[in-house]
Amino acid sequence: MTLGGRVRRGFFLTLEGIDGAGKSTLAKTAAELLRTRYPDVRCTREPGGTPLGEALRRLFLEERGLPIGARAECLLFSAARAQHLEDVIEPALEAGTAVICDRYVDSTLAYQGAGRGLSRERVEALQNWLAPSWRPDLSVLLDLPVEEGRRRGQARATPPNRFEDEQRTFHEAVRKCYLELAAAEPERIRVLDASRPLPEVLEALRVVLEAAMPEAEAGP
Amino acid sequence: MTLGGRVRRGFFLTLEGIDGAGKSTLAKTAAELLRTRYPDVRCTREPGGTPLGEALRRLFLEERGLPIGARAECLLFSAARAQHLEDVIEPALEAGTAVICDRYVDSTLAYQGAGRGLSRERVEALQNWLAPSWRPDLSVLLDLPVEEGRRRGQARATPPNRFEDEQRTFHEAVRKCYLELAAAEPERIRVLDASRPLPEVLEALRVVLEAAMPEAEAGP
Repeated sequence: MTLGGRVRRGFFLTLEGIDGAGKSTLAKTAAELLRTRYPDVRCTREPGGTPLGEALRRLFLEERGLPIGARAECLLFSAARAQHLEDVIEPALEAGTAVICDRYVDSTLAYQGAGRGLSRERVEALQNWLAPSWRPDLSVLLDLPVEEGRRRGQARATPPNRFEDEQRTFHEAVRKCYLELAAAEPERIRVLDASRPLPEVLEALRVVLEAAMPEAEAGP
Repeated sequence: MTLGGRVRRGFFLTLEGIDGAGKSTLAKTAAELLRTRYPDVRCTREPGGTPLGEALRRLFLEERGLPIGARAECLLFSAARAQHLEDVIEPALEAGTAVICDRYVDSTLAYQGAGRGLSRERVEALQNWLAPSWRPDLSVLLDLPVEEGRRRGQARATPPNRFEDEQRTFHEAVRKCYLELAAAEPERIRVLDASRPLPEVLEALRVVLEAAMPEAEAGP
């Protein structure tokens, strides 16, 4: 596969889902599984992963009072992503590294699209503008009822971000969009029921990841 | 005219040109001229004009060490512009205000396009994504040889920004692009020779502005 015109020798896994679904816990297990097949595993996140991305994350995710409309928000996430692809994801994949990214384009489609009211076509057009071959090898969607996600989020120590402040209808729209994206691309996006006991979720992750990873090649 | 689907009752003037060309001085004179015809005149700038825009300006214009690629830079300017249009420019024009903006889309075409190497089609596609009817009523391009702009810039007290650090070839490409844009849209973009004595430049501004402003209507 190629990304940004370069050969993609590594494996690109993205983790998606509403906050509280357990993406961080899954990232650790996914890293262990990928380490059995790839010489290096890089865990990263969006927005973030570069000095620009982390600065933007502080600016627009954590500074909740700053007025930001739907278009600007979508462009900011995309700016962070462009730098992330250029400086981190594309070079890592080219070098044969497995990349695990906590949130990626499907988040933008769900949050800035369904959540903020931009059409899916419009959000996807912007992703195609910045990187036509943006699709990961595998995206794992941790699906969870909105109320359960909020309950888990409230139990965490971190202050709520710009999106956790939003009403239930916003998060319901996000969840619905995620499931629609998975239905439209069932090969790329695999849905895991994150309300099940953790060992079962991790086992399901192992199964979908084993199935998605290319066969080990014979020799170098 | 309409902008963002709303009726544009005011007048939208943008000032363009390399740093040191004298845009700030011209803005003052343009404001005096527009005040004879419009009840309110609003002077603003890009990137900037909103809390988000000014925060981004500090982040990517003044923090010169932050690695930012061509795509991310173009997306950041566009994010600031989307918020600027939504919160400042569109409401002002709808209310009948004359808006003078120091730098706008032509800067993005010249700096992020010609300067950074993105194609004009690609930069324009992004502007159309964020606001299909982005074109101002009049854009005044203050044209100046690059060496003269640099000489004037060095005489100023403000520290150089991300672009003033660039080499001469960068600024030559920017100037060339500006002139090509003006040749392609001679009705919208009027070129003033900024190397002439200031009173002559201001008189030339008065002439192009009088010609571009709509006739005063008879009564309300």
